Amino acid sequence: MNDQAIILFAHGARDQEWAAPFAIIKKQLQAARPDTQVELAFQDFMTPSLEAAVAQSAARGARRVVLVPLFMAQGGHLKQDLPLLVGKLREQHPQLELRVMPAIGDAPEILKAITDWVLRSASA
Amino acid sequence: MNDQAIILFAHGARDQEWAAPFAIIKKQLQAARPDTQVELAFQDFMTPSLEAAVAQSAARGARRVVLVPLFMAQGGHLKQDLPLLVGKLREQHPQLELRVMPAIGDAPEILKAITDWVLRSASA
Repeated sequence: MNDQAIILFAHGARDQEWAAPFAIIKKQLQAARPDTQVELAFQDFMTPSLEAAVAQSAARGARRVVLVPLFMAQGGHLKQDLPLLVGKLREQHPQLELRVMPAIGDAPEILKAITDWVLRSASA
Repeated sequence: MNDQAIILFAHGARDQEWAAPFAIIKKQLQAARPDTQVELAFQDFMTPSLEAAVAQSAARGARRVVLVPLFMAQGGHLKQDLPLLVGKLREQHPQLELRVMPAIGDAPEILKAITDWVLRSASA
């Protein structure tokens, strides 16, 4: 194991099946980076929480955590709740380098992939 | 204008900036399909509603509507609320052919794009 952890942070839902796509992304990342910790964390309804996932990654030796919010866009969750939570996490784990990625919808390549997918499906 | 409409259906949020990525997808689709109506619709907080967007598309001559839920995954919104709403829309617009696409997270190519994006960003 290297000292990096990737934590995929999703909204969560009451329906357990909701998490399936996130589990696939986790699996794909883990296959591409077998030496990196890859974890899922959820804001609501599902476990582990982001705090629990970060604590576990740190306990397993992570020093650099990349936090990936798997949210479509930046709203209250990412602009208000998450920065507060990340502030707390930095206090709890001062030894960790904690980097927060933007939302999925901030990545032009993801928007392009969605557009292409809609175009293909809409013609079918 | 042809007789197809693509309606991008998103969750909505109190923060108006939240809609920015969806507006980009709409613009990209419209550029690729100048003769097709491309509309945004929202479940909560933002307008138009899905009902209003479908009614408007029909009034402008659409006969085939492709409804694209821009949600990360299938939870209560897509598995319970949306089918009820689509049932109502089919009663209101019996002349429309209304097709509902799966969630973004059900498309392997989108999951792959997200995985690749995380891998690139996590190494940077």
